Amino acid sequence: MIIVMKNGASKEHIDHLSGWLTERFGVHVNPLYGTGTTVLALIGDTASVDKDALLRDEYVERITKVQEPFKLANRKMHPQDSVIQIGQDVFVGDRKIVVMAGPCSVESREQITDIAKHAQSQGATVLRGGAWKPRSSPYSFQGLKAEGLELLHHAHQETGLPIVTEITNPAHIELFLDKCDCFQVGARNMQNFELLKELGRINKPVLLKRGFANTIEEFLMSAEYLMAGGNENVILCERGIRTYETYTRNTLDISAVPVLKRISHLPVIVDPSHAGGIYWMVAPLARAAIAAGADGLMIEVHNDPAHALSDGAQSLTYESFEETMASLRGIANAMGREI
Amino acid sequence: MIIVMKNGASKEHIDHLSGWLTERFGVHVNPLYGTGTTVLALIGDTASVDKDALLRDEYVERITKVQEPFKLANRKMHPQDSVIQIGQDVFVGDRKIVVMAGPCSVESREQITDIAKHAQSQGATVLRGGAWKPRSSPYSFQGLKAEGLELLHHAHQETGLPIVTEITNPAHIELFLDKCDCFQVGARNMQNFELLKELGRINKPVLLKRGFANTIEEFLMSAEYLMAGGNENVILCERGIRTYETYTRNTLDISAVPVLKRISHLPVIVDPSHAGGIYWMVAPLARAAIAAGADGLMIEVHNDPAHALSDGAQSLTYESFEETMASLRGIANAMGREI
Amino acid sequence: MIIVMKNGASKEHIDHLSGWLTERFGVHVNPLYGTGTTVLALIGDTASVDKDALLRDEYVERITKVQEPFKLANRKMHPQDSVIQIGQDVFVGDRKIVVMAGPCSVESREQITDIAKHAQSQGATVLRGGAWKPRSSPYSFQGLKAEGLELLHHAHQETGLPIVTEITNPAHIELFLDKCDCFQVGARNMQNFELLKELGRINKPVLLKRGFANTIEEFLMSAEYLMAGGNENVILCERGIRTYETYTRNTLDISAVPVLKRISHLPVIVDPSHAGGIYWMVAPLARAAIAAGADGLMIEVHNDPAHALSDGAQSLTYESFEETMASLRGIANAMGREI
Amino acid sequence: MIIVMKNGASKEHIDHLSGWLTERFGVHVNPLYGTGTTVLALIGDTASVDKDALLRDEYVERITKVQEPFKLANRKMHPQDSVIQIGQDVFVGDRKIVVMAGPCSVESREQITDIAKHAQSQGATVLRGGAWKPRSSPYSFQGLKAEGLELLHHAHQETGLPIVTEITNPAHIELFLDKCDCFQVGARNMQNFELLKELGRINKPVLLKRGFANTIEEFLMSAEYLMAGGNENVILCERGIRTYETYTRNTLDISAVPVLKRISHLPVIVDPSHAGGIYWMVAPLARAAIAAGADGLMIEVHNDPAHALSDGAQSLTYESFEETMASLRGIANAMGREI
Repeated sequence: MIIVMKNGASKEHIDHLSGWLTERFGVHVNPLYGTGTTVLALIGDTASVDKDALLRDEYVERITKVQEPFKLANRKMHPQDSVIQIGQDVFVGDRKIVVMAGPCSVESREQITDIAKHAQSQGATVLRGGAWKPRSSPYSFQGLKAEGLELLHHAHQETGLPIVTEITNPAHIELFLDKCDCFQVGARNMQNFELLKELGRINKPVLLKRGFANTIEEFLMSAEYLMAGGNENVILCERGIRTYETYTRNTLDISAVPVLKRISHLPVIVDPSHAGGIYWMVAPLARAAIAAGADGLMIEVHNDPAHALSDGAQSLTYESFEETMASLRGIANAMGREI
Repeated sequence: MIIVMKNGASKEHIDHLSGWLTERFGVHVNPLYGTGTTVLALIGDTASVDKDALLRDEYVERITKVQEPFKLANRKMHPQDSVIQIGQDVFVGDRKIVVMAGPCSVESREQITDIAKHAQSQGATVLRGGAWKPRSSPYSFQGLKAEGLELLHHAHQETGLPIVTEITNPAHIELFLDKCDCFQVGARNMQNFELLKELGRINKPVLLKRGFANTIEEFLMSAEYLMAGGNENVILCERGIRTYETYTRNTLDISAVPVLKRISHLPVIVDPSHAGGIYWMVAPLARAAIAAGADGLMIEVHNDPAHALSDGAQSLTYESFEETMASLRGIANAMGREI
Repeated sequence: MIIVMKNGASKEHIDHLSGWLTERFGVHVNPLYGTGTTVLALIGDTASVDKDALLRDEYVERITKVQEPFKLANRKMHPQDSVIQIGQDVFVGDRKIVVMAGPCSVESREQITDIAKHAQSQGATVLRGGAWKPRSSPYSFQGLKAEGLELLHHAHQETGLPIVTEITNPAHIELFLDKCDCFQVGARNMQNFELLKELGRINKPVLLKRGFANTIEEFLMSAEYLMAGGNENVILCERGIRTYETYTRNTLDISAVPVLKRISHLPVIVDPSHAGGIYWMVAPLARAAIAAGADGLMIEVHNDPAHALSDGAQSLTYESFEETMASLRGIANAMGREI
Repeated sequence: MIIVMKNGASKEHIDHLSGWLTERFGVHVNPLYGTGTTVLALIGDTASVDKDALLRDEYVERITKVQEPFKLANRKMHPQDSVIQIGQDVFVGDRKIVVMAGPCSVESREQITDIAKHAQSQGATVLRGGAWKPRSSPYSFQGLKAEGLELLHHAHQETGLPIVTEITNPAHIELFLDKCDCFQVGARNMQNFELLKELGRINKPVLLKRGFANTIEEFLMSAEYLMAGGNENVILCERGIRTYETYTRNTLDISAVPVLKRISHLPVIVDPSHAGGIYWMVAPLARAAIAAGADGLMIEVHNDPAHALSDGAQSLTYESFEETMASLRGIANAMGREI
């Protein structure tokens, strides 16, 4: 961290400020005196230094962070790509691109099992499906809850596919532990720190979705919450951000893929279904994600989208999922990967 | 809800779709046939009708909501302003503008008590202060937690000021019930529906902050979660939204004040401290809020902002709080209100 | 400007870079060597230093601007408020709050004259009205053009009100010079630098509207274009920015008022009509603007809004303009100003 | 267009409103009376109907557009892909993906010629380069202007590559006509309607960049300005939009590619250089663009990016341009195209 002092800051003032910084945050302060400009370089772990308080100092002109505030998620600390295992056989972040597919909501035993089998037959290796559904309206379908979890578990037993499903309440962790292979933290809970802290204490992978209005830095700070708690099995998922554009439900931030791969070692997947919000955008956005360097995809597939209990507009039919997977294979190969 | 059908939709198709809508969502469908255009008007409670699924119908061209999706929070259902009581003597939404003041975080018994007394002496009637602090970084100060709650309670006993403090986990509700007079749901938890559902079951007022990237409609839908659960004591708080502008931490959406007052009966307050993110913006934004019709303000005040454990940059000193309150009085009077 | 070098930058590299900076941009480079950190402080006029090129240097870690890039518009260069004269008697930036009122488009001699008289009777001191109308659609009414300018001039002769009207093409400047007292640069042309350069060469005031997606810094840089050309008669106008919120046409950035007043000496006015996009928001937003410190307002008034050729939804009727002006007087007085 | 009337609208009122709509806008009004709901379906060319004015009618509840407001750019009017010719041999929108490459600014005869030759050797078929540079700061390099145009023409003569360069002033059209093969309208001028109208009168292709805060609909309405004037040779260019994210200069709206291809027949290219703002993002974003269905790319290449007069941070070196082109070939092939 670099602190640029205003002209006129006295030696005493700088000494006082330096002393306070060392005492309060444990950092070493290295003052650089120039003609008319004094700059303080802070050495050590500056992640906890409170920029806000410093700006109240009457002689502080400007503060620049040099280090990123995330440490465990930072590629500088961990130059190799992390590969996260889900269930027995799935490795996210490796050469093979992982496709997680399934319905928005679990609706019935037949529905989820049938979709699981179809998805698997097309190359998906993880089953997604919502049991607890966070919905904007209290009057919308809220998911089958514990029953949904059971149905997912059943589909897992039928197909062997590991399960990823969303958790919305720290109180549910015990219940989920036996039934799912990967905890999903949804976009609206990306900064539900109470939930993140609890998930940081367990040992199963967490698929962390970027909040729809969160920066890349905030996204990695939420990963950091999980990792600082001891759980380093984190998969990052870009799923579109909120902008002024109304033609799409969200704007897929495709740039987030190369940025995250560059500054973090964690694997990055993309959810083209929620990003675009409509079925015909899923294939082009999924292809773009792989071409940009994503390690996997999360795609909504439904046996009967027009009568789905949620998110029907964006779900692929079996037929279009098949076509999508075929077109993804060519892109994966061009990237030197497989699917 | 109005559904515009594409040209070419057959009578059979329309009958089939109408039947499904009635069966699934319990609405009455009124088809309006024109030359080359057919429009279906849905009558009844359309709040649960799933727009997404409908868009999958190959003959649906466009869907327009006519009713707002919120009901209990809607002024159409409740034309008079709601007035929400906090503690014994404070009424939000009435002629008197309510000022809630206090530090970002509770830091010590002396700090919170001293600030409470000063705030009260200047006309604040509710004490704010954070015990559990949701912070972007796991390495930042996370609040004094249960101890902070005790200290707030002590300050309440010393001054009689009712307490508003943020809750971040449904599991804490019991603990809070005895110690605070108003539950605050922070911006990051505005769509933490598990928390909202639990707070909907209690009988104390909830101050609901708008998420920093949520629409006004989503904001009211979160209020609806609380109200649908049975707790109609909801106070809405605008605190700035995220935009591309970097000069301010958030962009105070001042227009939200007249919009919310027009479409909802719930009281609306504004938090100018978090909106601007810097102390010298607090007074002009607070004045603007009252001039736009807000019913109250939430302002950060600290006895020593340069050494605050959080949000020092935006906290007012005692002196500037005093000046701010003085300048607010003139605006309140011009609005036919008092402070 | 502060350049933080990466660890490992050699003395030779730093000397070479410093030499290039001095030669290319005429700045003095003051290197500050610390333990493991080297920082270069650039002294002199750094406004033209190209941050982009510097970032390509393999040993540059980060660059921080210390000076704002605008100079003539900067309050540091000109601590007193600038007061801009329009016509004979109007002074923007002085104690009296200036209200500019009139229709979106000039439609006929009767319309513009009648509105001018009404606006004047209620306290407006400048007449606004569009002759050339930039419209999103080529199929919408594009304004009466030169005829509209004549009609504005006629209304000026009838009432004495000075005229502000929008210019969209550098080629029209001559034509406008005789007919208007203040050139308006619309939001869509805020970065039409060819137009700004030409307007920088004349001697009449320019009312510069903030682009709907431009930052405050870009806004002041466009003012700088005018001033650097020699025309220092610039009035800044905040009129709402584009965000994800759809309830309002734009989001009035009320914070821009105190920010602009703090960092620039130029007068600041607000256009509540375009910001909200609907008539019932005009009065609360106008009051908020004055309470936040604005020096004036630009308000759309129409004799028959339901049949206006453009922007009918946001125009005030005579009756509501009268009510609005009455409510503004109280706020202006509370601010120690008059209207 | 569908107008939903409020309950209580009388037959007389509806007749009156219908009459006015027909008289003013030439549309036929088809009233659909239902139980408690009346809807007016407007038949005919509703592109000029003023939604704003209608919203002032006290019995109008809501208005829904059914037709897109753009006509000539609409795929419904022109189901086949348009292919736009630049110079003798380049066809944008055809099977071959067109790469336009070159420096941000033309700096010297040697620079532009050398870059042109290198770009051509790697497969670029159009030379880009700025002669007039719109810059946020009046103190930044503004381009070589007419001399730059001459140098581009020289590079064209040396290599045969057709030239695309930005025009910023309608007064320059004559000068450009002889020297360039395709007019570029930059992001900041996307709604400079005076410029669009003039370019609509000529017969050369126009590469229209999306404004950094414009919607897809506004983008197509600007294309419509060109086409309505008679010039149907329009190429659309997505180049990133402004969001709250600060890691990238702009957020590439990759979804715009499939959306534009679906609703318009015009060819779509992507500028990954301006979108990301930094060289290492160019290749992944360029690959994503092709995978999403783009017809071409515009890429900044410079012989010496660290000393470029503008946009050095995002320019590719010769070496990285070569690598980028190689990686693009695989993606193009996977898409059944070539480059």
